[in-house]
Amino acid sequence: MNDGTRSRYAYLGPSATFTESALLQLPEAADAERVPMPGVIEALEAVRTGEVSAAVAPIENSVEGGVSATLDALISDMPLQIMREFVVPIKFVLAARPGVKLSDIRTYATHPHAEAQTRRTIGKLLPGVTYLQAASTAAAAAGLGADLVGAPYEAAVCNELAAWRYGLHVVADNVGDIADAETRFVLVSKPSPVPPPTGADRTSIVAGLRTEAPGALLELLEQFAARGVNLTRIESRPTGDGLGLYQFSLDVDGHISEARVAEALSGVHRTARSVRFLGSYPRADGRRPLITEQTTDDAFGRADAWLDAVSHGCEPS
Amino acid sequence: MNDGTRSRYAYLGPSATFTESALLQLPEAADAERVPMPGVIEALEAVRTGEVSAAVAPIENSVEGGVSATLDALISDMPLQIMREFVVPIKFVLAARPGVKLSDIRTYATHPHAEAQTRRTIGKLLPGVTYLQAASTAAAAAGLGADLVGAPYEAAVCNELAAWRYGLHVVADNVGDIADAETRFVLVSKPSPVPPPTGADRTSIVAGLRTEAPGALLELLEQFAARGVNLTRIESRPTGDGLGLYQFSLDVDGHISEARVAEALSGVHRTARSVRFLGSYPRADGRRPLITEQTTDDAFGRADAWLDAVSHGCEPS
Amino acid sequence: MNDGTRSRYAYLGPSATFTESALLQLPEAADAERVPMPGVIEALEAVRTGEVSAAVAPIENSVEGGVSATLDALISDMPLQIMREFVVPIKFVLAARPGVKLSDIRTYATHPHAEAQTRRTIGKLLPGVTYLQAASTAAAAAGLGADLVGAPYEAAVCNELAAWRYGLHVVADNVGDIADAETRFVLVSKPSPVPPPTGADRTSIVAGLRTEAPGALLELLEQFAARGVNLTRIESRPTGDGLGLYQFSLDVDGHISEARVAEALSGVHRTARSVRFLGSYPRADGRRPLITEQTTDDAFGRADAWLDAVSHGCEPS
Amino acid sequence: MNDGTRSRYAYLGPSATFTESALLQLPEAADAERVPMPGVIEALEAVRTGEVSAAVAPIENSVEGGVSATLDALISDMPLQIMREFVVPIKFVLAARPGVKLSDIRTYATHPHAEAQTRRTIGKLLPGVTYLQAASTAAAAAGLGADLVGAPYEAAVCNELAAWRYGLHVVADNVGDIADAETRFVLVSKPSPVPPPTGADRTSIVAGLRTEAPGALLELLEQFAARGVNLTRIESRPTGDGLGLYQFSLDVDGHISEARVAEALSGVHRTARSVRFLGSYPRADGRRPLITEQTTDDAFGRADAWLDAVSHGCEPS
Repeated sequence: MNDGTRSRYAYLGPSATFTESALLQLPEAADAERVPMPGVIEALEAVRTGEVSAAVAPIENSVEGGVSATLDALISDMPLQIMREFVVPIKFVLAARPGVKLSDIRTYATHPHAEAQTRRTIGKLLPGVTYLQAASTAAAAAGLGADLVGAPYEAAVCNELAAWRYGLHVVADNVGDIADAETRFVLVSKPSPVPPPTGADRTSIVAGLRTEAPGALLELLEQFAARGVNLTRIESRPTGDGLGLYQFSLDVDGHISEARVAEALSGVHRTARSVRFLGSYPRADGRRPLITEQTTDDAFGRADAWLDAVSHGCEPS
Repeated sequence: MNDGTRSRYAYLGPSATFTESALLQLPEAADAERVPMPGVIEALEAVRTGEVSAAVAPIENSVEGGVSATLDALISDMPLQIMREFVVPIKFVLAARPGVKLSDIRTYATHPHAEAQTRRTIGKLLPGVTYLQAASTAAAAAGLGADLVGAPYEAAVCNELAAWRYGLHVVADNVGDIADAETRFVLVSKPSPVPPPTGADRTSIVAGLRTEAPGALLELLEQFAARGVNLTRIESRPTGDGLGLYQFSLDVDGHISEARVAEALSGVHRTARSVRFLGSYPRADGRRPLITEQTTDDAFGRADAWLDAVSHGCEPS
Repeated sequence: MNDGTRSRYAYLGPSATFTESALLQLPEAADAERVPMPGVIEALEAVRTGEVSAAVAPIENSVEGGVSATLDALISDMPLQIMREFVVPIKFVLAARPGVKLSDIRTYATHPHAEAQTRRTIGKLLPGVTYLQAASTAAAAAGLGADLVGAPYEAAVCNELAAWRYGLHVVADNVGDIADAETRFVLVSKPSPVPPPTGADRTSIVAGLRTEAPGALLELLEQFAARGVNLTRIESRPTGDGLGLYQFSLDVDGHISEARVAEALSGVHRTARSVRFLGSYPRADGRRPLITEQTTDDAFGRADAWLDAVSHGCEPS
Repeated sequence: MNDGTRSRYAYLGPSATFTESALLQLPEAADAERVPMPGVIEALEAVRTGEVSAAVAPIENSVEGGVSATLDALISDMPLQIMREFVVPIKFVLAARPGVKLSDIRTYATHPHAEAQTRRTIGKLLPGVTYLQAASTAAAAAGLGADLVGAPYEAAVCNELAAWRYGLHVVADNVGDIADAETRFVLVSKPSPVPPPTGADRTSIVAGLRTEAPGALLELLEQFAARGVNLTRIESRPTGDGLGLYQFSLDVDGHISEARVAEALSGVHRTARSVRFLGSYPRADGRRPLITEQTTDDAFGRADAWLDAVSHGCEPS
């Protein structure tokens, strides 16, 4: 248990992963204890037990899509809530011990996902190089940094934080095949009052469809469309009950305290088989949604006033 | 002005029309002053000026559809409100002065609408008979009843009330071509607090579409479909601003105080160019709508409670 | 029966109505026999029996909406087909015998619809004037033109054609309350091959809903929306089988030979309880519809080519 | 290149994986050369180059959902086509060398996905056991089967095929946490003529949305709903062009040669930004879709006949 004298934040370890980079965007994390965890499941479990006050986990990658492990861990047990999001550019470097040159490299190590995202670039830089699988990009870097003799590789594909932390130098910068790749991370805590709206917020839910019938997903999406609420992410996740049975993890533009979002969520609550609220929180990019004049809080307020007036026999002429 | 000592109800005259039959279904009308009016416009105008406390007008006919004159008069000026509805079977009789037999009839009179609705039956009963146009079915009857010599016809197609009031006898009963024809009438007053819900209510509105774009009518109807609110009547009415510009007169199942109806009306208010509330009132047939479990007031209540809970960090697990 | 030596066209009489004005827009009608009919039902019946080759009837009025009598007569019996449309400005004049001045007029006659559409203007011109009901605007004019003594009125509200034909002079021009009122008329014949598309066409159908369920009308309209086909008129018409049972008379932009219209009509045929095709014909105003690039005949053609290609194992890469 | 003397099928290796089990369901694979590949990308690449005639890859797992690696590899390069599907029950066993008992096991190896799917069961059978990560379940089994001394674990979690092939015995059967887990595999070849419909077929496509606007996904799904075509799988996949940009991988019930499916695919082709056809092929479970009478091939045929008739002026009355 956390004794409360100092905040503790869990993250997907080991030290120096992209997830730790995301956590370091949180001002209060700088002085807090940052606890690396072997997996997302373990990191979220530590929040649930109270061992840490919050955890950071990747939720969406511009190249690989929704991070299933995080989506599933968020909803598979006691409720948790997303309080913040961070976007981290996924910049890979080829790092080696000081003094090692590109031409010295015969073998390199990295995580398979990183290998997939750098294959073309590394192939051009180092034709014929041998790849070794590592448990994480940070582990690959750590293997070189450790004071051991005989690491079976000369270089690691990792992020800049790992290179810096393990005393490596960057042999080649920006070795990712896709420029501008980035990952969105979320800060997850136990359920708490929703942070106030900023005007540029995101709301996350998971909803299970009521029937398998054609049109059940359509019905779910219409709850948002009918109120002018924009979807920014939709992921189908199996319910685990058989092939073809799905629930949907959704992000929408807006905050639960805004009328159009509240009415849409109410519609989902009424019509879906199940729904879990995962949080309303500021968008990392600060982008405000386009809200049509039919769906502003003002429009909802005027409609309520009209309903009240006509119910009492005083329709404005 | 009405001096208030005795209620006055306007109806589409003359005396003994189907509209007066409808009015006589209203218990308090028996002792009230019943004021025949030459047209629906005049009847509703009398409500607006306060000359009468309410008026009865036909709104929908099972054979001819919505009654445009009434629909247009309801919305073309200061707001009015529907407080009640009555359904009257449209039963036509062929009536004549006492002693006149079927074989004596060479010529008959009635209103053109009544002529259209009885043509086949009268044609079989009286091959070769001549038809004279009258201003109303009641006027046709009155012409025979009056103590005048020389009415240029021997029979009238009218309702039973008119036959009885003008001292005629029924030569042939049920001369309508379509059995079970009926007309729905409404009792209209100045805007007043909406009568309480009975569980079997109807709500009437008129809405103008925001754009001519394909889909504007679809958008209007989706406001009801998305909340499981059933339409029982839809009439397109021109706005008077040019060919192809329409507003829609709608009846839906339910009462403005029910959550699904209120939310749908709010949606219409937000998205339509204009909307006028014409009343929530008990259905004459007492038929209760089928409400799915997703759209009961309870379902809305539970959704609101859930929204409130998760906003405060206490999602039920 | 028409002996075929000369074309015969029926129209809603008497002579010199707005309907005859519409018919005179048809070049070949100038030399044809124009047959006035007492009503729309009779005019269309004459087409069905072959007594005339075609008939003209009003279908939509910018002030009063769809003309129910025509809509119902079109669908109540053997199929008929709309081949052309004409738009006629509804311009009323106050006409009198030569030498009669405005100040001479104590009483005037016209059709009740025309009275309704000119009431405010006539009220200002002739405060305190008395109105007499006539069977048509043309009949009101004819009554003055006839060489009879003792018509019980000094003026008629009618159209210019009637004033001219009966030798009257125009005491006051443009006495309609609503400027720019106009009526759309259709030329109706027995079913014939559809005239070729002009790029600015209209298609008319009548469809009966399959169920009373909420959403049946929505389903009908979605057949058009899903193919980007714009509705220009929708009229609910009772089926005659009871209050609340409707069929819908629709006009849409486009021609049955265009792919998006054909696919929408096919969808209506599959999903509606009943559908009757009333014709594809050139719009009187020549206005071409906006067709999105997703619904051009080209887009349909490319989609068909793609379906064919991938079915045979040659998807374009 | 394949010299054609003997068919070659690639599969996700090593030998004895669930994927090889799936391949063995294909009768003609029994005598063919089965080529294990290190990854799905490599297996599909071998099809593209012609090195093998087809490849088997997992596409959907009842526990973990769509297999992103396969979905992405299918669409990231030259077109490929799904010709068959197979469903394989995912049955895990705990296997060891002959003579090893449950109580002898201190450490076991398996693939991380298999570890995740057996964790609770293994935890109960072997409290305190140590887990070692292996590259595949088959590799874990192979490590025990090999004639080597000193494998650092006593047991493997693998499938029955692997246990049998490497001469192991089953210490505990059915060690999966979720009963009835199963995986769907597909047989992929170069584009070929689509196999004929069986009445119980599935069609797979990938479609990119035309806009980010709210409603673009709705529009895509409506193409299927409007034709009564049921979705059985939907996966969002990032386009790789930035966070929040998606394409959708879909399976629907039915065959491209059926009219309702063809029209829906045509609609997708017209309205989506991009679409790739991945095949129509028999469902492994032989389940026939429910087809409403509005969307049978007959209904489409009758609609076409009607369109043709009315275009030529012969509407059936």
